[in-house]
Amino acid sequence: MKKVRGYKCIACASEFSPDEIEYVCQNCRGNLQVTYDYRFVKKNLNKSDLAKNRDSSIWRYANLLPVEDGAKKPLVRIGWTPLYKAERLGHKLGLKNLFIKDEGQNPSASLKDRPGAVAVAHALERGAGIITCASTGNAASSLACLTAALGLKTIIFIPETSPIAKIAQLLVFGAVVIAVRGTYDDAFDLCLKATEKYGWYNRSSGYNAYTREGKKTCAFEICEQLSWGCPDKVFVSVGDGNLISGVWKGFVDLFEIGFIDRLPQLVSCQSENMDAINRAFKSDGIIRPVKAKTIADSISVSFPHDGEAALKALDESRGFAISVSDEQIVRAIPELARGTGVFGEPSGVVPFAAMKKAIAEGKINEVEKIVLLVGGNGLKDINSALESVGQPVKIDPDLTELDKIVSRDFV
Amino acid sequence: MKKVRGYKCIACASEFSPDEIEYVCQNCRGNLQVTYDYRFVKKNLNKSDLAKNRDSSIWRYANLLPVEDGAKKPLVRIGWTPLYKAERLGHKLGLKNLFIKDEGQNPSASLKDRPGAVAVAHALERGAGIITCASTGNAASSLACLTAALGLKTIIFIPETSPIAKIAQLLVFGAVVIAVRGTYDDAFDLCLKATEKYGWYNRSSGYNAYTREGKKTCAFEICEQLSWGCPDKVFVSVGDGNLISGVWKGFVDLFEIGFIDRLPQLVSCQSENMDAINRAFKSDGIIRPVKAKTIADSISVSFPHDGEAALKALDESRGFAISVSDEQIVRAIPELARGTGVFGEPSGVVPFAAMKKAIAEGKINEVEKIVLLVGGNGLKDINSALESVGQPVKIDPDLTELDKIVSRDFV
Repeated sequence: MKKVRGYKCIACASEFSPDEIEYVCQNCRGNLQVTYDYRFVKKNLNKSDLAKNRDSSIWRYANLLPVEDGAKKPLVRIGWTPLYKAERLGHKLGLKNLFIKDEGQNPSASLKDRPGAVAVAHALERGAGIITCASTGNAASSLACLTAALGLKTIIFIPETSPIAKIAQLLVFGAVVIAVRGTYDDAFDLCLKATEKYGWYNRSSGYNAYTREGKKTCAFEICEQLSWGCPDKVFVSVGDGNLISGVWKGFVDLFEIGFIDRLPQLVSCQSENMDAINRAFKSDGIIRPVKAKTIADSISVSFPHDGEAALKALDESRGFAISVSDEQIVRAIPELARGTGVFGEPSGVVPFAAMKKAIAEGKINEVEKIVLLVGGNGLKDINSALESVGQPVKIDPDLTELDKIVSRDFV
Repeated sequence: MKKVRGYKCIACASEFSPDEIEYVCQNCRGNLQVTYDYRFVKKNLNKSDLAKNRDSSIWRYANLLPVEDGAKKPLVRIGWTPLYKAERLGHKLGLKNLFIKDEGQNPSASLKDRPGAVAVAHALERGAGIITCASTGNAASSLACLTAALGLKTIIFIPETSPIAKIAQLLVFGAVVIAVRGTYDDAFDLCLKATEKYGWYNRSSGYNAYTREGKKTCAFEICEQLSWGCPDKVFVSVGDGNLISGVWKGFVDLFEIGFIDRLPQLVSCQSENMDAINRAFKSDGIIRPVKAKTIADSISVSFPHDGEAALKALDESRGFAISVSDEQIVRAIPELARGTGVFGEPSGVVPFAAMKKAIAEGKINEVEKIVLLVGGNGLKDINSALESVGQPVKIDPDLTELDKIVSRDFV
């Protein structure tokens, strides 16, 4: 692959050739970044070809992905999710250019199909027979979905507390599901040990450099959907730090090949119960584990395994960090849904809750182009959604009974 | 609208001009079909324009939809769902050309966003302030999603037994939810009475002619995605009969404007517990209510309100009818998911279960192009999905414990 130069360690900046290394840095065990020969990429990728390209999936950007031409890929369509201009909701909040990227419309109903697809293509290239992953739920259900039609055995490690809908997806798609009595962090560690012992291919975020490559396609799509404009601020849910660093990588890639002429500010949005990255960013830059719980299960991470990369993305983008309460998260579910038609899971609406806080703190100018990344569909966690709303009105099938409600509520 | 000629009654063939009528036939109260001036449509719609059109939604077919140019529409992206060629699953079943249309990737996670969008655009054109709908769940949750960002008050009638995920969607999107102590048929009747009494706009399928117009876009997409080929057989879940008649309308529209040169056979797929249409088709053509229950809640309809149109579609397409058991439906959920990566709700996999029965009965030739319409995402009904699979393996976060499982199951 001429387009891929190799890997660069995020912690110590050591560089490696593509075949020299499998997961982390040989010198310091830091996480790796895939590096490209941007001059080569520029020769093969241009905006007018993209404008004609009817491939509505992440593979339209194959020239900027670490996957061989003609590589075997998952059957399902990944990415090219809609970017909505939320006029009505924006107006209510005093914003003229509010955009919502609805990642819940991916095949397994979350953004995690992007990193999963790139990692799966890589695993197939390597001839892997078993692929594994630790996950709070979405990365796992995505991996199970993507590998379903490929004959790749999939072994998943999740905390036993994952929402039931995500567990149901895993089982329906036929993955082997190891529910660990413990936290996501426990599941991550066990998955890592298993990889080392059994030689399985490990897709875990914050360990496998290819997940960031998948996540960056969000940024590609945002810019193309804005007619190659660049947003001013992008609000991103942050758990292990892999998504925000992936999104940043996407903007940087586009900047390097001259597709955009400036870069956005990224905003790290966390639950204030689990905000190791935001705490580090606001203090001395050292990440320390936090022990707590949040309703936003997808970002319920005690020790963020891609924290360094996340802090770097925040620094380089001159971004900032906002933590919100679980109560604000729950309230954000119906507010976003009613304003846009986008029903997000708890972690999916964290960027919306954080943006509201940023507005209140005077951190947003009304004309700025704001993008909120809604990472997962609300159907993945109905119980949390139900905490945010009332109950149906139950009546007998009788017009007289209905009449009472109508005359009380709608006249 | 020059493209729309008017309405034609499906029962008595009376014709009406567009402004003459609101819902059903003035002569016999039969359901209406929207009719087009196909010569006019042909002048404004051609394949090469469509090939260049990057609007990945149903509105790419605006020239064949009963909506004014520039009409106000829902914010969310509707349609252009993927059509997958299921090589692996097809091979297993002895089929060379098996295709899956995954409707679960619509914004509210079901096919019902198509009819909802056309009906909502029509309601807005008419200046409606309140829109109502009776539904087993999906049409309702779709309507709530579509109207969320439009300031249109939405009042929903569902049976109280609707799956909790669908009720959660309704409440989150801010609809008024009337849960009727009774069946879908009771909810339908009460909604109709309410419409007549309060003058609300009624979007119910099997009453409002515009829903069929939305559903027909499935057929448009299937043909365009097959490079304007026509499938041999399309397997469709059937409840009230509106979907299969809508899909048929789509193929007929394309045939009339010369985009396809033949028509497919449609297969009506029902639960054998609730198969009023299939029973009528196989006997004397007279629809009689059935009283029973099925796990496939979306097609749990005692008296099908668009039954006449469904029977006509079956006749005209020289189609056939297959009913399957609830047990076959439940088993079909993981089988389809594992073969394709598409997780369907119970009614969504009924076409797959029916196709398997059709294969067993020798009704399918291995080279035929078969399309299965998967109408809704499995996340809409987790409890039914969980009936079809086992449990996760629970362990402590400990490699020794994992070792036992690995050496037992994967060596």
